[in-house]
Amino acid sequence: MIEKFKQPSGVKDSLPTECIAKKKTEEILLAKFASYGCRQIDTPVLEYGEMYAGAGRYELRRLFKLTDTDGNLLVLRPDMTMPISRIVATKFEPGSYKLCYLGKTFRLAPRSGLREFTQAGVEYMGCPGTAFDAEAVALAIEALRACGLDGFIIDIGHVGFFGGILDLLGLDPKKRDELAALVERKDVIGESLFAAREGLDPEIMKLLSRLPMLFGDGKVLDEAERLCMNDAMRRSVSELKALDAALVAAGYGDRISYDLSLVGEMSYYSGLVFKGLCEGAGSPVLSGGRYDRLCDAFGRRVPSVGFAVGVDVLTEALGSASSDDIRVYAAVGCDGDARSVGAALALAAKLSSEGRTVELLGECEEESVASAAAERRIYYRRGEEIRL
Amino acid sequence: MIEKFKQPSGVKDSLPTECIAKKKTEEILLAKFASYGCRQIDTPVLEYGEMYAGAGRYELRRLFKLTDTDGNLLVLRPDMTMPISRIVATKFEPGSYKLCYLGKTFRLAPRSGLREFTQAGVEYMGCPGTAFDAEAVALAIEALRACGLDGFIIDIGHVGFFGGILDLLGLDPKKRDELAALVERKDVIGESLFAAREGLDPEIMKLLSRLPMLFGDGKVLDEAERLCMNDAMRRSVSELKALDAALVAAGYGDRISYDLSLVGEMSYYSGLVFKGLCEGAGSPVLSGGRYDRLCDAFGRRVPSVGFAVGVDVLTEALGSASSDDIRVYAAVGCDGDARSVGAALALAAKLSSEGRTVELLGECEEESVASAAAERRIYYRRGEEIRL
Repeated sequence: MIEKFKQPSGVKDSLPTECIAKKKTEEILLAKFASYGCRQIDTPVLEYGEMYAGAGRYELRRLFKLTDTDGNLLVLRPDMTMPISRIVATKFEPGSYKLCYLGKTFRLAPRSGLREFTQAGVEYMGCPGTAFDAEAVALAIEALRACGLDGFIIDIGHVGFFGGILDLLGLDPKKRDELAALVERKDVIGESLFAAREGLDPEIMKLLSRLPMLFGDGKVLDEAERLCMNDAMRRSVSELKALDAALVAAGYGDRISYDLSLVGEMSYYSGLVFKGLCEGAGSPVLSGGRYDRLCDAFGRRVPSVGFAVGVDVLTEALGSASSDDIRVYAAVGCDGDARSVGAALALAAKLSSEGRTVELLGECEEESVASAAAERRIYYRRGEEIRL
Repeated sequence: MIEKFKQPSGVKDSLPTECIAKKKTEEILLAKFASYGCRQIDTPVLEYGEMYAGAGRYELRRLFKLTDTDGNLLVLRPDMTMPISRIVATKFEPGSYKLCYLGKTFRLAPRSGLREFTQAGVEYMGCPGTAFDAEAVALAIEALRACGLDGFIIDIGHVGFFGGILDLLGLDPKKRDELAALVERKDVIGESLFAAREGLDPEIMKLLSRLPMLFGDGKVLDEAERLCMNDAMRRSVSELKALDAALVAAGYGDRISYDLSLVGEMSYYSGLVFKGLCEGAGSPVLSGGRYDRLCDAFGRRVPSVGFAVGVDVLTEALGSASSDDIRVYAAVGCDGDARSVGAALALAAKLSSEGRTVELLGECEEESVASAAAERRIYYRRGEEIRL
């Protein structure tokens, strides 16, 4: 038998100190998103498995699955991007929408070890072009800054560069995904074995082997430009150069870097991809990108860009310096009799409505509450103020 | 195939207007809980099925279940009381803790129709006695008041009164539950059939048939007192009379009523039970009670009382009068070139850090944003203020 105090792996409790820190992070993020005009939206944890497997091209084996009473396959949502795309494409009039969210998401075997985690994010739906790409990255930087995170960097890539190389290789979708996974892991040996097995053009493989070295500041984009072998690659580099110019002009030059081997964990990304990296954090504090064709499966073309902050990772990276526990203004004790309890309750309601924090001590002896009251400013008994 | 824009039954999206109203309700509730000294805590959605089936005596058939990769049975938590009891009994030092929470909970076939819903609640752990019972009811009233709910009443019962009648009948646990369900539904015909089938004492059945009529203000407790046939019943009435005296003394007399047929949906209640009822709301806006023995299964006796507010039901009952959408302070447009985009981003960051809400319009023609800007106070272009 499972012991009753054990918990499933990959989930954790947030006890008050940690919970306060996490709520503070969430509040700052949502306030920053709102100040950029994003409207909050909420979607259910439970979605149909078909939605993720179909439109999102998610692998169902990576999701928590359950069978509904009507026989349908349900999943615990692994992200908020798919549900929000579903809503915008099927419930909203065509147009552009800046949306944000906060909620729990679930993955069966994520890299971070956590299987149930909190995401706060932004989706710019119906927002095509570099100006919105730049705004998404800028908002990501401002949001992390607002939380007080130091020493972070937004690492930027573009799926079109690697996609252009894949086009040259003429691989089928399954082999594309396999090679993409190798590149994402910077697994050079795996890539060589793959190339040998598939008999790939040595010239193109040489280019591919350069990918993991194509990282650094904006200058790396010039090098990438020289390596372009087709229009898809050229287009991606030109988009990144325009993005870089805008972000540098806005003063974000010291917060961004480029990595052309960043190909995006999600298969739905169609352009820009980025990750927020921070020293000391084992996994990215945020990740995002452009997904112009995700809504196609819902019957509408909605060019979009967005990102999700991993609230658990970010809160941990920020450290629990914020042990600002509740500050109790007054402790209110009472005797056992109804009149005394009533007086204490009435006083508590009054102080609370004035914005004070009050702690009712219940039935208690005067001596037993001396220590409790000593930590507070005022101690009441039978509705009368007593200074100890 | 399930169409991709369909959603599972019993779940729903919160689009921005509704989401804003819901978040406002949540904020008010948590602020009120905090002002009564409650510290927020968060627990995972995923728990072991054994915990609920064992300690909580939940029926697993009512819960969303899934099998973990290691073969264990997981459930989506149907409440927060069990996980918080788990934490207090196994992770905290013995003592008294006032805790609050906000989170999603899940039930396979609840009365309200919603299968995924948001609860905000309070648990007073290690808090025995009538003074804490009174505080829990008082805080429930203050919380609903703070949200602006009119015309609600807290309906109060005690499981000991009905439990005393069951003791007289000498029924086994399964039949007790069956009869309890009939009483909870005020199903008088079902009760008669049950009595005939089980050959129950007509005198006690007469008392049982009075139960559904034992409701109203504090005076009904006098009538209940006269009907008591054993100590369990007398103790429960005496506890309710003490509670009533305290709540009336605190000025809550007009917000409370009694119903001795209220026996609590949860089998773990051990004393006081209560529900927040509101005209126009199809189901209770809150429910709670005392559960002194729930933590026994975790190896510690922790007398506790608490309640959970149904945030979805409450928000609906409050009406969406609060359509206070985001008020945008400035609209910022830009040309396609990087310098212009950068200037817009820098301006947005400045306004945001000053607490303003700004809407970046992306690359746009001056004429096409005239209508957007007209709704805002200021329109910027290339970082320069333009009054239209």
